[in-house]
Amino acid sequence: MTPNPNLIRTVGIFSRPKREQVAAVAPKLIEWLGAQKLQVFYDEYTAVCLADKARLRTPHELAAVADLLIVLGGDGTLLAAARAAAPRGVPILAVNLGGLGFLTSVTEDDFYPVLKEVLAGRHKIRERAMLAAETWRAGKVAERQIALNEAAINKGTLSRMIYLDLHIDGAHVCRYRADGLIVSTPTGSTAYSLSAGGPIVHPSVPAFVVTPICPHTLSDRPLVVPASARIEVSFEGTPELVHLTLDGQIEMELRAGDRVLLARAEEKLRLVRDPQKTYYEILRNKLKWAEG
Amino acid sequence: MTPNPNLIRTVGIFSRPKREQVAAVAPKLIEWLGAQKLQVFYDEYTAVCLADKARLRTPHELAAVADLLIVLGGDGTLLAAARAAAPRGVPILAVNLGGLGFLTSVTEDDFYPVLKEVLAGRHKIRERAMLAAETWRAGKVAERQIALNEAAINKGTLSRMIYLDLHIDGAHVCRYRADGLIVSTPTGSTAYSLSAGGPIVHPSVPAFVVTPICPHTLSDRPLVVPASARIEVSFEGTPELVHLTLDGQIEMELRAGDRVLLARAEEKLRLVRDPQKTYYEILRNKLKWAEG
Amino acid sequence: MTPNPNLIRTVGIFSRPKREQVAAVAPKLIEWLGAQKLQVFYDEYTAVCLADKARLRTPHELAAVADLLIVLGGDGTLLAAARAAAPRGVPILAVNLGGLGFLTSVTEDDFYPVLKEVLAGRHKIRERAMLAAETWRAGKVAERQIALNEAAINKGTLSRMIYLDLHIDGAHVCRYRADGLIVSTPTGSTAYSLSAGGPIVHPSVPAFVVTPICPHTLSDRPLVVPASARIEVSFEGTPELVHLTLDGQIEMELRAGDRVLLARAEEKLRLVRDPQKTYYEILRNKLKWAEG
Amino acid sequence: MTPNPNLIRTVGIFSRPKREQVAAVAPKLIEWLGAQKLQVFYDEYTAVCLADKARLRTPHELAAVADLLIVLGGDGTLLAAARAAAPRGVPILAVNLGGLGFLTSVTEDDFYPVLKEVLAGRHKIRERAMLAAETWRAGKVAERQIALNEAAINKGTLSRMIYLDLHIDGAHVCRYRADGLIVSTPTGSTAYSLSAGGPIVHPSVPAFVVTPICPHTLSDRPLVVPASARIEVSFEGTPELVHLTLDGQIEMELRAGDRVLLARAEEKLRLVRDPQKTYYEILRNKLKWAEG
Repeated sequence: MTPNPNLIRTVGIFSRPKREQVAAVAPKLIEWLGAQKLQVFYDEYTAVCLADKARLRTPHELAAVADLLIVLGGDGTLLAAARAAAPRGVPILAVNLGGLGFLTSVTEDDFYPVLKEVLAGRHKIRERAMLAAETWRAGKVAERQIALNEAAINKGTLSRMIYLDLHIDGAHVCRYRADGLIVSTPTGSTAYSLSAGGPIVHPSVPAFVVTPICPHTLSDRPLVVPASARIEVSFEGTPELVHLTLDGQIEMELRAGDRVLLARAEEKLRLVRDPQKTYYEILRNKLKWAEG
Repeated sequence: MTPNPNLIRTVGIFSRPKREQVAAVAPKLIEWLGAQKLQVFYDEYTAVCLADKARLRTPHELAAVADLLIVLGGDGTLLAAARAAAPRGVPILAVNLGGLGFLTSVTEDDFYPVLKEVLAGRHKIRERAMLAAETWRAGKVAERQIALNEAAINKGTLSRMIYLDLHIDGAHVCRYRADGLIVSTPTGSTAYSLSAGGPIVHPSVPAFVVTPICPHTLSDRPLVVPASARIEVSFEGTPELVHLTLDGQIEMELRAGDRVLLARAEEKLRLVRDPQKTYYEILRNKLKWAEG
Repeated sequence: MTPNPNLIRTVGIFSRPKREQVAAVAPKLIEWLGAQKLQVFYDEYTAVCLADKARLRTPHELAAVADLLIVLGGDGTLLAAARAAAPRGVPILAVNLGGLGFLTSVTEDDFYPVLKEVLAGRHKIRERAMLAAETWRAGKVAERQIALNEAAINKGTLSRMIYLDLHIDGAHVCRYRADGLIVSTPTGSTAYSLSAGGPIVHPSVPAFVVTPICPHTLSDRPLVVPASARIEVSFEGTPELVHLTLDGQIEMELRAGDRVLLARAEEKLRLVRDPQKTYYEILRNKLKWAEG
Repeated sequence: MTPNPNLIRTVGIFSRPKREQVAAVAPKLIEWLGAQKLQVFYDEYTAVCLADKARLRTPHELAAVADLLIVLGGDGTLLAAARAAAPRGVPILAVNLGGLGFLTSVTEDDFYPVLKEVLAGRHKIRERAMLAAETWRAGKVAERQIALNEAAINKGTLSRMIYLDLHIDGAHVCRYRADGLIVSTPTGSTAYSLSAGGPIVHPSVPAFVVTPICPHTLSDRPLVVPASARIEVSFEGTPELVHLTLDGQIEMELRAGDRVLLARAEEKLRLVRDPQKTYYEILRNKLKWAEG
């Protein structure tokens, strides 16, 4: 699971928190990485914070050249970085500058010790499944995107409810009359799906969660389906009233007659594992279970 | 509670179901009412179905002239009629052409016997509380509307969550981080609020329900507050991301800095009571409790 | 609402927390009250903690002689004191020695200033509705008890589910197939009913909440009914499998064929109002909304 | 997956519905099986219904001699049969005499055609994971049982709540303050766990669901953990107040200091697959989604 440490020659930095936080952390980090004889590039936001475009690269260029991606920011920043890094399999070391995230549990204090372990090749990688979303139009894939957390199909504001037909592996499951529908990875089960009433799913369970949003039929409950499932959602009515968003960040256009196909992506997030905290510990802290 | 039957001289008809249903029911009804020496007017939709504009009136004209409003359609039709009729206190006799509604439990079969009772003054009226929604801007009311079911404040699609501050009677209650917030009457408690996880509230309970939509904070639960409460919702960020809708039918415009004030309306829906069915019976049928 | 301060001549003390807490607080309190020329009595637990039975009285004797009942302990202690004090209308000043309760928001630090205000007659009383529970057997009331929080009807352990028939004001509402049923006051809505999925109901709403416990029928939702409702629960099968408990503290015996009648009690809890904290503030703290 | 049809020489019958139903169905079935040159045995209940003890066997003897177990009854009957049959791997053909079950979807009408397919070896078997429950006492296993649906740890009636500590794979997850805790298989996810708010889990997902019953901490949500998880539950206080039941049918005794260990059983239910109905179809019917 651990890459040859000799292979980490280039590091990409990807950031999204408040400018002053990046400005406080990034220069020291870049200097430190340089002192380790590593080449460093960064994304546009980091360049703006540093007021230095010398090593600016697009997210996809970063993913192409970097052997390690350091993400400075919270869970939201990681979502964007994950979608860029996953196709290349670049491991991500995520540092939370603001607090503790579900995915970004390494904090500024733990950061350099963890980074040294990574450069020495003594870290472990945990893989997180991602979701591929395709819109099908006239028998062909019109658009394809990947998501780490979830794909959400929501109604527009004035449309009171929408009808969504769910098919899994070709079998009709049900017609939802609801505000929308979330298909979530285990990683995303602690995000939007949880707010909509979905269960918490351990990241190692090979499954997706289908969670209706404000379902009209009161017996509609979250459904945990195998990760091998091909989940198809079709809808009635005009597409202006229905929106498909991935990770709350990317909107995919829908037209009348489109079908949305959701399935496990070949791409995976490869995350440097926080040696200090277990999954259940992070969960307990984030959900305030400890204070019961 | 029962008006003098002699006072029912003018009847308004308000309809919204499929055209062929109105065309099948309305001509006979109009003829029957004429035979009782009653004057009849109807709304635009009915005029279109009848292909006869002779007695066409606007909803507000209907409310002004009619001593009784007959609503042909389901619960959605009644919502629109109620907002028009309530300011004048015109009683409504609602007939469900499609099935059974929470509010429209009189069906086509029961209709004429019930109508005869009404014209003879032998019916009972049940009053249903309504909600007044005001947007406040620069210290003044910018817009005011009434609702029978609920006022809903929703986020736009791409904005992942919104922050909504709730004050009741001047006291800060909490800051919701959610997809939105519903303030519902008891009548509306079986509509959108129920889908969002709210309780069922008997119409005679003097209360409103505040139900968060997909709250991020898992301990946010529906809140039942006295009907005398002045409920104030303010929000952070740009108004393009936040929408206020009443009964799922009317959108009220919001601008940055607006506050939404929700309180019991002076207007009330006056509904001719179905002599056949009790509240709990309708509930049991609509929610399929009988089939447990 | 405020009694004549001259009338407070006798104070009862009722306690239930850890012995060392009572031993640390009560002697000083008794001395202080004596210095104000007040007569003091206390319950058995306090007597044990003080190792002094001189002024020991039963809960009902305390309620009969005291003009004010001081309760030392958390919400659980208050529940027991409330059932004793309510029939006599004795006001209660509740002090939480352990933390912050929904009902016991006065802490040790605020206590003496609040007590001085009470003795000076400058306090306000808030009344809280209570629930009367009667078991009916062979056409007569077999037992009657009152509760501040709730009456819960639960199945025994090995019986998988029980059937409970709910009638309200004589009308059949539904047959629950569930682990049990909770009928809660607004005060109790933040206790057991909340754990079972019930809404939070402001104490000034004249209503009760009927919350099923683990209902088999997924459309069974909490029901908010008027405080005037006569709620009748009957059950099928042998009574060994069904238990009725009030406030989690009193068990009422059930026999085959018994019916349980629940309605607003004439008795009310009269609670000295905490001048410092509003209802919503306490709610926000207890449910950790502030930390959202 | 299909056994050699020649191997089906002995058939066991296991029943639990109303006596008259068994009396109406079993004699014809036994005669029919005899005509196929098959040896037939049955359990005690069937013997009583037939008033014939000639071929009576204990459940474990039936499992030992039969090549196929025919279960007459609903889901509850199947639970008992599954625990008996699973250790021997005997396939079960379940016939629902009363209606449609989640597990017993073959009805009396479909029965003989399906049975002929089974005897001809043209059927498919679907395996369902089971749960092994062990109570550990003084470092040793005191008792072991298996369950098809779930293990439930419940509080007794008068104890208001219990504290349950959950460890998974040795890591502390949380301390529940609740009425109880359910650990469910995917098969059991549509039974008790669903009533307590758990998700529906497709039987092919290798996972268990941990669902708290009426949790006091509102952020406690159902947790889906890998099927490889070793789930350990320990509790505080006296064991009289805590009960462990399997499938709602077997009670396992608990003593102070006991720990309950729950993990995937080596035993599996081997169920003759209904050729007519898919999983989602059965779900849709049982949960009344079709009628939305």
